[in-house]
Amino acid sequence: MKIDILTLFPNMFQALNESMLGKAQEKNLLQINICDFRQYSNDKHHHVDDTPYGGGAGMLLQPQPFYRAVDAINQDDAGPKRVILLDPAGQRFDQQLAQELAQEQHLVFLCGHYEGFDYRIEQLATDRVSIGDFVLTGGEMAAMMMIDATARFIPGVLGNGQSAYSDSFAQDLLEYPQYTRPAEYRGMKVPDVLLSGNHQKIAQWRHEQALKRTWLQRPDLLAQAALSSEDQQFLEKLNQPRQK
Amino acid sequence: MKIDILTLFPNMFQALNESMLGKAQEKNLLQINICDFRQYSNDKHHHVDDTPYGGGAGMLLQPQPFYRAVDAINQDDAGPKRVILLDPAGQRFDQQLAQELAQEQHLVFLCGHYEGFDYRIEQLATDRVSIGDFVLTGGEMAAMMMIDATARFIPGVLGNGQSAYSDSFAQDLLEYPQYTRPAEYRGMKVPDVLLSGNHQKIAQWRHEQALKRTWLQRPDLLAQAALSSEDQQFLEKLNQPRQK
Repeated sequence: MKIDILTLFPNMFQALNESMLGKAQEKNLLQINICDFRQYSNDKHHHVDDTPYGGGAGMLLQPQPFYRAVDAINQDDAGPKRVILLDPAGQRFDQQLAQELAQEQHLVFLCGHYEGFDYRIEQLATDRVSIGDFVLTGGEMAAMMMIDATARFIPGVLGNGQSAYSDSFAQDLLEYPQYTRPAEYRGMKVPDVLLSGNHQKIAQWRHEQALKRTWLQRPDLLAQAALSSEDQQFLEKLNQPRQK
Repeated sequence: MKIDILTLFPNMFQALNESMLGKAQEKNLLQINICDFRQYSNDKHHHVDDTPYGGGAGMLLQPQPFYRAVDAINQDDAGPKRVILLDPAGQRFDQQLAQELAQEQHLVFLCGHYEGFDYRIEQLATDRVSIGDFVLTGGEMAAMMMIDATARFIPGVLGNGQSAYSDSFAQDLLEYPQYTRPAEYRGMKVPDVLLSGNHQKIAQWRHEQALKRTWLQRPDLLAQAALSSEDQQFLEKLNQPRQK
């Protein structure tokens, strides 16, 4: 997959060269190109922002540096691409969108920065995506997260035997609690069942814990989960008030 | 504000030294300390992970390096702190939580990585926070975003005259479209009203555009917004089918 990132802060992207994403680039599964779009400014001082029409505080990013940078990307590669604008007013990014974007050949991320951007930049995007209901100084960190979550679905990016399809949300349930050595730490013990060697019991305990956790912390996810009749019975028991 | 970040990938945090967050550190409004918690491993090879009890693919982070790293932070500064575990099963991060965290003196971020972490690490956290319904390779990028969104609410971090309280979500409405020079670009014109110089009309247009955008893209936000009777009338008109 090809990824172009248009930003005013190319040094912010060091995190893409570490860990899984660094290895994916070494294996050539990802080609990430970071472009400082200031070079596409028409202005002799390379300004990319100006004051808002109609007044108001702050500066806005102007349309032409983004448009000209995307022109250059299209000239270099005429193939289909998704042009993604990081925008708090956009569609919410989630695991489904990550999976969908992982099917694409070419993604372009437009990272706004400072107070805002000219509305016409929205027309340049095929997708306007929000990472959540909060405000960031720029789209850079959100773009990195989207690339990380998306790359996990590209075959070969995760290590051998691993699959993004067994993570939290993949089955519409949160993950069950996991434990590793030591068996006891500062008085906190690993549940006996996990030490029992009884694989059927372990599988059942884990599934029930996943159900219970989701019921406690994210009941909204249960509404869309595919539940067996045993699952339903287990949840009904949780819903009953405890006997005194 | 003091911030400690416990991670296995200290090089991922370059983004914190750029732009607004870099300036906030220069001004000493933020003291960010990045700690590779591998140094707190008891293991002679400095391993920090092991296989899951009860079987299963992948490795889990062990409790002791995190516990010992937090011990060291507490020894250094006994003051109150929030210990935040980045966890897809946690409370959803949003603008309100950013504002709340901005009141704190000291935040500690526990960044998991790889497939998961021992459940006992959850007991170490005062807060388990999720950035959204998607899975990341580690908590590092999510921690950076939380720090960015939170720091905007610390007095002095944003430039003069700016305020995090006028951003999207601050009034439970999305921001209105903004425009800057040029007045026409590739056939796309700035709306006449913004060039009119009539400040009352501009203010009304902007407010109505914010309402309309929120109504179109995030109707869920309108339910909690404080709307005037004029706002209600405007929205009722939008809800009516168009006359032919």
